[in-house]
Amino acid sequence: MRISTFDTTLRDGTQGESVSYSVDDKLLIAQKLDELGIDYIEGGWPGSNPKDKEFFSRAKDLRLKHSRLTAFGSTRFAKNPVHEDRNVAALLEADTPVVSIFGKSWELHTTRALGVTEAENQALIFETVQFIKDHGREVVYDAEHFFDGYIDNPDFALRTLEAAQKAGADVLCLCDTNGGTLTGRLAEIVSEVRKRFDGVIGIHPHNDSDVAVANALAAIEQGATHVQGCMNGYGERCGNANLASIIANLELKLGHTVIGSEKLTTLASVTRYIAELANLPLRRDQPFVGHSAFAHKGGIHVSAVLKDSATYEHISPEAVGNRQRVLVSDLSGRGNVLYKLRQHGLADRLTEEARRELLERIKEMEYLGYELEAAEGTFELLVREALRPGQHFFSVENYEVVTKSGVGGATRSTATVNLSALDGVHSATASGHGPVHALDLCLRKCLAGLYPQIADVRLTDYKVRVLEPKKGTAAKVRVLVEWSDHRKSWSTVGVSDDVIEASWNALVDAIRLELMRITEEDGALDKAVEDYCWGV
Amino acid sequence: MRISTFDTTLRDGTQGESVSYSVDDKLLIAQKLDELGIDYIEGGWPGSNPKDKEFFSRAKDLRLKHSRLTAFGSTRFAKNPVHEDRNVAALLEADTPVVSIFGKSWELHTTRALGVTEAENQALIFETVQFIKDHGREVVYDAEHFFDGYIDNPDFALRTLEAAQKAGADVLCLCDTNGGTLTGRLAEIVSEVRKRFDGVIGIHPHNDSDVAVANALAAIEQGATHVQGCMNGYGERCGNANLASIIANLELKLGHTVIGSEKLTTLASVTRYIAELANLPLRRDQPFVGHSAFAHKGGIHVSAVLKDSATYEHISPEAVGNRQRVLVSDLSGRGNVLYKLRQHGLADRLTEEARRELLERIKEMEYLGYELEAAEGTFELLVREALRPGQHFFSVENYEVVTKSGVGGATRSTATVNLSALDGVHSATASGHGPVHALDLCLRKCLAGLYPQIADVRLTDYKVRVLEPKKGTAAKVRVLVEWSDHRKSWSTVGVSDDVIEASWNALVDAIRLELMRITEEDGALDKAVEDYCWGV
Repeated sequence: MRISTFDTTLRDGTQGESVSYSVDDKLLIAQKLDELGIDYIEGGWPGSNPKDKEFFSRAKDLRLKHSRLTAFGSTRFAKNPVHEDRNVAALLEADTPVVSIFGKSWELHTTRALGVTEAENQALIFETVQFIKDHGREVVYDAEHFFDGYIDNPDFALRTLEAAQKAGADVLCLCDTNGGTLTGRLAEIVSEVRKRFDGVIGIHPHNDSDVAVANALAAIEQGATHVQGCMNGYGERCGNANLASIIANLELKLGHTVIGSEKLTTLASVTRYIAELANLPLRRDQPFVGHSAFAHKGGIHVSAVLKDSATYEHISPEAVGNRQRVLVSDLSGRGNVLYKLRQHGLADRLTEEARRELLERIKEMEYLGYELEAAEGTFELLVREALRPGQHFFSVENYEVVTKSGVGGATRSTATVNLSALDGVHSATASGHGPVHALDLCLRKCLAGLYPQIADVRLTDYKVRVLEPKKGTAAKVRVLVEWSDHRKSWSTVGVSDDVIEASWNALVDAIRLELMRITEEDGALDKAVEDYCWGV
Repeated sequence: MRISTFDTTLRDGTQGESVSYSVDDKLLIAQKLDELGIDYIEGGWPGSNPKDKEFFSRAKDLRLKHSRLTAFGSTRFAKNPVHEDRNVAALLEADTPVVSIFGKSWELHTTRALGVTEAENQALIFETVQFIKDHGREVVYDAEHFFDGYIDNPDFALRTLEAAQKAGADVLCLCDTNGGTLTGRLAEIVSEVRKRFDGVIGIHPHNDSDVAVANALAAIEQGATHVQGCMNGYGERCGNANLASIIANLELKLGHTVIGSEKLTTLASVTRYIAELANLPLRRDQPFVGHSAFAHKGGIHVSAVLKDSATYEHISPEAVGNRQRVLVSDLSGRGNVLYKLRQHGLADRLTEEARRELLERIKEMEYLGYELEAAEGTFELLVREALRPGQHFFSVENYEVVTKSGVGGATRSTATVNLSALDGVHSATASGHGPVHALDLCLRKCLAGLYPQIADVRLTDYKVRVLEPKKGTAAKVRVLVEWSDHRKSWSTVGVSDDVIEASWNALVDAIRLELMRITEEDGALDKAVEDYCWGV
C-alpha cells in the first residue's frame, strides 16, 4: 500500500535541544527531502518566529519536484474571530499548498491550558480548518495529545476529530505528543479510530518511551496511511519518531511503497547531510544508516558474515545506501583502501613499493588523528601524490599571521606568505576576517597568476575538534575544512597542536588537490575517489 | 508480575563500536548494576579473551547483594566431547552461579556457519546444557537467531528449544540476534513458544530495526518473564535493547515489578555512570534518562508545563531520577527565562526593566549566533551581570597573537595581553601550542596575582563551527569552549568573523564567570545555576 510521508525535521525537529538551523540550512534540507521523495515537508510555524517567516518567503523560489511544502500553526486563539487571527493569517501568507493545524484532543489541555469549554474547543477546530480549506489549501489536522486524550475521555477526543473532519480536513493525524503511549495500547486506539472515520488517518509519535518507530509501524498496521516523523529522530525532549527508520521498515519489511527502492538507496546520505547541517554527529549506532549499523566487531560474527552476510545482517546495507564494515583490526581499514584502488584498476598503476608507502602513510596519519574517512579530499590528494610523485606545484617558504585587538574589541588579522612556484618566488600580505581568511587570501594572491582556476574553490565549512581534551588549550586539534568548486564538495583535514597550523595544512592541501585535478583529468581515479568518499 | 532483568552491558555491550572497558571498569559497573537491583549480570565470555577471564577471577571478590553473576559461552565445539571442550571448561572455571549458553536455532547457521546436521546441533545444545547443569549451575539458554530461524523453519527452531529444555535449562531465551524482526511478528512467535513451553521464557532483542524496546515489551505481554538488554542500548551494530528504557516502561506503565520504585529513582545516575566509564557521552535525547528527556524548548510547551507538568511530560522525571529542564533559546518566550529566575527566588531581585533587558539581550545574542542553550556558562554570566551591574574585575586594553611557521612547517604562536585590574595594569607575553593556548597563558599570568583561584579552571573541549558557510574563510564562526574546575563543567561561547576573537571572548567570559563565582557566594543563584547547568 502507498503510505504518505510527512517530514517535520524543519519544525518539530528544531525543538530538539542543540538542533538549530539557519534559514539557508532549512532551504537546503527542504531541497534534499524533496530529492528523497518525501511527500510533505513541514517547514515551520510562520506565526511564531521571524526565521520561519523568512523561510516560507524564500521557499517560494525552491523548485520542489515532488514534496508539498506545509506550514504549521495552531487553531485560532479563543478570543479572535478566525478571519482576524494573526496566526491563521500568517499561515495563509506562507502561501504553501498544505497547512497543518493542531488542536486539542485532551480535556486536561482544553480546560487547563486553553481554558475553554468542549463546545468552544470544537468551534476553534472546526472554524480554523474550514477557513483554511476555504482558501484552497490541503489541511492536515494534527490532533495533539490524541492518545492521552482518548485514554482520559474517548468520546471527548473522538468528537474533536469529528469537528476537524466535518470542516473538511484531508488528514486526521493522531499525535502521541508526550510520547508516553506504549505500542499495544496505541494500536488498539488507532484501530478504534479507523473503524469510525473514513479518509486518511495519520500517526505522529514521539520517542519518550523509546518505542516511537514501533508505534508508527503499529498504527500503519491498523490502517493509518500517513506517517509523521523527523530525520534522525530529532525533536523536542527524546525526539520524534525517526522517519528514516520508518521508511526503511515500511519499504523493506512490510511491503509498502513509500519513496521507492531507488530513492531508498540515498537514505543514508540524506540523513548524514541533515546531521551535518545540524552540526550534530550522526549516531554511529543509528539503525539502517549509522556507520556502525552494519559494522561487525565480534570475531564469530565476522567470520560468519564473510561466509554469508545474511547470517548477521537483517537487510542488505546497500538497500539504504549504507555498507558493511568489518572492525577486525586497524589492518582491515588498510585492506579496504587497497580494495578500492584495485576495484577501479588503479592498484596496478602503483608499484608494490608505492602501494606499501601509501598504506604506511595513511596508517601513520590515522594514528596521528587524521580520520581520513571524513576527509576524502586529503585521501584523494595522497592517492594522486602517489600516482604522480614529485608533483608539488609550489612549496611554502614561510608564513606568519598576526591578530590584534582594535577599538571596541574587534580584531584585525594580517598574514604574510612566501612561497616558490614554477614561475618564481611570490610574497603576499593580506588582512582578513580572522587568521584563516587572511592566510587564504595570501595563498590565492601568490598563485592566482599561474593558476587562475583556483578562484573557483571556496571554503564551505570549518570545524575544529580537540583530540586530547585533557591537555586543555595545549591540546592537539583536528581541523576539518569543507570545500566546494560549485561542482562538488570535499573535505581536507589538518592536525596540529596549533589551530592555525592545522588550518593552514588543510588549506594548502585543498589548493594543491585542486591543482592536481586541473592538471590531470583522470576518470578512473575520480570514480575510485567518489566511491571511497561515499556518503561522508 | 515479577520480570527478571538480565544485563549484558559487560558482554554484548562491549561488542559495540567504540565501547571498551578495562577490567576495573567492568568491576565497577557490576557493582553499580547490583545496587540498581539487576537480577543477572552477564560479565563476559571467559573462553574468548584474557580480559574476561581476569574479570571473572577478580569478580569473586565482589560482594554482590542481589545480582547473580553470569558467564557466557557457546555450546561445545562440534569436534570436542563436552568434558574436553576448553570453552566449556572456562565457563565452569569462571565459577559463577549462572551460565548462559548460546546455540543455533536457524538452519542457515547450523548448516552454513557450523556445518553440522540438525541432530548434531541438538546434541551440542543438549550435552552442553546438561553438563553445566550437572555442575550445579543455573543455565540460561540463549537461542541465537531464534526469530529468523523460526520464520525460516519453525519446527527446526522449536526442536532446538526442546533439546535445551530436556537438558534442564532454567530459562529459554529467544534472541533476535540480527535485530530484523518487527514487533507484530515477534509477538506472534513468542506467543507460539509460550503455548508449547512451560517455564521461564526470555527475550533478547537487538535494535537494527529501531524497535528493540517495543519488541521486549511485546514479548513480555505475550508471556516472557525474563528480559535481556544493555544499559544505554550499547551493543554490536545498532546495539541491544536499552534495558534502562525497558525497566522504566515495565515499572511505570505496565504494572510489573522489576527493580522496584525506590531503586528506579537511581536509574538516571546509573546510566550516566556507565556512559562515563565507557567514555561515551550519554545521548541527550535518551528516553527517560537523557538530559533532554524532560527539557522543554518551545514557548507553548513551556507555558503549559508551568501550569501542569503532565501536559507535556509522560511520567514524573523524578520517578527515574531525572528532572525537568526549561531551555533558553530564540524559540523561548519570556516564560523560559523567568522560570529559571523565579524557581529560585531571583526574579524579584531583578526589576521588571532588568528582566526585560536580560531577555532582549539573550534574544539578540541568539540572533547573532550565540546558541546560549549549549553555553550555560555564558547564560550564567549574563544573569550574574544583571544582578551585579558594573562588576567587571578587569578590562582588556588590547591583545595580540602572532603565529609563525618555523623549520619543518611547525608553527610557534606568541601572544601579548595588556589589561587593567583592581591592582593596576598588567602585561604578559607567552608562547604556546597555538594562539588560544598562548592567549590563555597570558590572561592567567596577568590575573594570577590577584585571583590565584583561576588556576583551577581548565579547558576541556573546544569546538568551532561556521555560521555562514557561503562566505568561505570570511564567514562568522561560533566557538564553544567547555571548562571544568574539577567540581563542575560549563561552556562559554564566542561569536565573531575572526576565530581568534571568538575564542578570546569565550576565554574571557569563562574567567570572568569564575571570578564572579569566587567573589560572591550566592546560595540562591548557585542553586539556580546548578539547576540550569545540571548534568551538562
